[in-house]
Amino acid sequence: MESKPIEIFKYGKPFELESGKTLPCLDIAYHTYGQLNENKDNCIWVCHALTANSDVADWWPHTVEKDAFLDPDKYFIVCANILGSCYGTTGPTSENPETGSPYYSDFPLVTIRDVVKAHRLLANHLGIEKIFSLIGASVGGFQALEWAATYPEEIGSMVLIATEAEASPWAVAIDETQRMAIFSDSTYGERRRDAGAAGLATARALGLLTYRGPYGYNNTQKNHPDFNALEGTHHRAQTYQRYQGEKLVKRFDAYSYVSILNMFDTHNIGRDRGGVEKVLSEMRMPVLVVGITTDIIFTPDYMKWLADSMPNSDYREIDSPFGHDGFLVEHEILNKIIKEFFSNLKR
Amino acid sequence: MESKPIEIFKYGKPFELESGKTLPCLDIAYHTYGQLNENKDNCIWVCHALTANSDVADWWPHTVEKDAFLDPDKYFIVCANILGSCYGTTGPTSENPETGSPYYSDFPLVTIRDVVKAHRLLANHLGIEKIFSLIGASVGGFQALEWAATYPEEIGSMVLIATEAEASPWAVAIDETQRMAIFSDSTYGERRRDAGAAGLATARALGLLTYRGPYGYNNTQKNHPDFNALEGTHHRAQTYQRYQGEKLVKRFDAYSYVSILNMFDTHNIGRDRGGVEKVLSEMRMPVLVVGITTDIIFTPDYMKWLADSMPNSDYREIDSPFGHDGFLVEHEILNKIIKEFFSNLKR
Repeated sequence: MESKPIEIFKYGKPFELESGKTLPCLDIAYHTYGQLNENKDNCIWVCHALTANSDVADWWPHTVEKDAFLDPDKYFIVCANILGSCYGTTGPTSENPETGSPYYSDFPLVTIRDVVKAHRLLANHLGIEKIFSLIGASVGGFQALEWAATYPEEIGSMVLIATEAEASPWAVAIDETQRMAIFSDSTYGERRRDAGAAGLATARALGLLTYRGPYGYNNTQKNHPDFNALEGTHHRAQTYQRYQGEKLVKRFDAYSYVSILNMFDTHNIGRDRGGVEKVLSEMRMPVLVVGITTDIIFTPDYMKWLADSMPNSDYREIDSPFGHDGFLVEHEILNKIIKEFFSNLKR
Repeated sequence: MESKPIEIFKYGKPFELESGKTLPCLDIAYHTYGQLNENKDNCIWVCHALTANSDVADWWPHTVEKDAFLDPDKYFIVCANILGSCYGTTGPTSENPETGSPYYSDFPLVTIRDVVKAHRLLANHLGIEKIFSLIGASVGGFQALEWAATYPEEIGSMVLIATEAEASPWAVAIDETQRMAIFSDSTYGERRRDAGAAGLATARALGLLTYRGPYGYNNTQKNHPDFNALEGTHHRAQTYQRYQGEKLVKRFDAYSYVSILNMFDTHNIGRDRGGVEKVLSEMRMPVLVVGITTDIIFTPDYMKWLADSMPNSDYREIDSPFGHDGFLVEHEILNKIIKEFFSNLKR
């Protein structure tokens, strides 16, 4: 897929958040691929995960391609950057028009519901009335579930990959430990974009542990057979953790990272709606739920439960050694099962 | 079990390390329970895990008890604090006699082999010629495996719980991320015992994630049903992570923690001996290998492989939701299977 330019939707009015606070202005960065058809019934909306961006063709290899499940010849594919991130949508490093300088730590709490509310404004702007299929993996699935819970009539079908309906104690514990890593870097709080960089690198390295899991690391980070820990060189897995931490620091910032961790922890489709089970039981659109055998964040047990909790769902499990990150790697099997799911849907 | 006083074995000579460096003096802190019998064939030696100490009756509840597998009426039970720790054995917070002040960052690299070498000096001091059973869980198992690999004639039998024969890429990645957390606390390196405290708290919180895993957290850290993330209170799992981090800071220090992480990463019973498989295949003593279904550090798949790699081993699996920490929690089933294993051994 050739790379597409990022577009920015500038919402000209103040944007009220779930917390009651207001963002004085709102930008939403997005990518589209393909064309909305005359019937306006070919939109696939992809919700991105934690540190990704709106360029789904870039971060989800081999999915935005002819004959893949995001075939731009057939579908009008939209992906928008989430609130609180740093890829063009309003977030902590955006300028606060009330002060003329970036928000940084002053950026207000944004929730998954706020993201959905913002992205619906973009959908409206693009002329989309109903989404053929709403797709999300990980935190992308949080948004999809929230959207479908709030506006079920707008969602024709849904694909939920390695995700959950409510931030679990386990996921919150992972997030909190990442925040601890950032907060224990004493430069965090300084009013510059690279504040807390060492803490952010640690947080990312920790995130990666949970994304890859034991099989992921043991399969891909073996030492050279001649490696000798007494000779002062580093294990390959050590170098990898540092490299991955530094890599994120180059493309992200600690303020945005904390913002999206906080957003993660607000996720609960059952809040003020009678609980998660009730909300799931009322989701009547066709749903494909996909679990990954070695995912230690969103375990297959949980994914099966999620599928069983919705009245019109199918469950498929991907047998992959790549853990949670399997959703990014296993495009072949994903293409197969999602296309199969689509072919059974009536437009 | 009533609490027993700690004892200190003062080795009066310089102690040469695997790295070639020398500790000018060596103390080994230890506990014993019960009495060595006349035949000197009733010693059970327990090797402790990462941040534990020599008081096994304290950290391993309901094991040093009448009719438990560490019955002090039957056995002479010994547990010694590991090198590099801070519970009485020489480590980074011990005084360096050459400078008159604590070692801190100057403490040399110590390896699992160094720990075994030191503990054999203690065994000799206590008059133990052969160990009836050598028991270790987690890093305790590293020491047991290393001891059995180096001096097989001294080990009558072995119980290996949730451990490995070589630090895996996955385990090293976990350790490296914990070191990153400590190093990104800019107070680490200052010559005081509480340097790097915030980083240490983060490292511990991360360690706990891996000890408990998804089922551990989701079973024990559920929020109150009325919890609302928008109301400014913390998830129970958040409070728990911070509390556990702070709790370790009160009883441990960042220098010792880094020292034992570094030691962990040197673990490889096959180093300079033709590889792990060869060494395991030559371990002829009876071995009980115990895996835990939800352990994400030392997975059941690996534990089965470990058992299969030794010629005289039995494999048992504990079905527990507590992850790696199951070895500390599941004393009832451990008592049962280890006593069964002992009853089939000839003294």
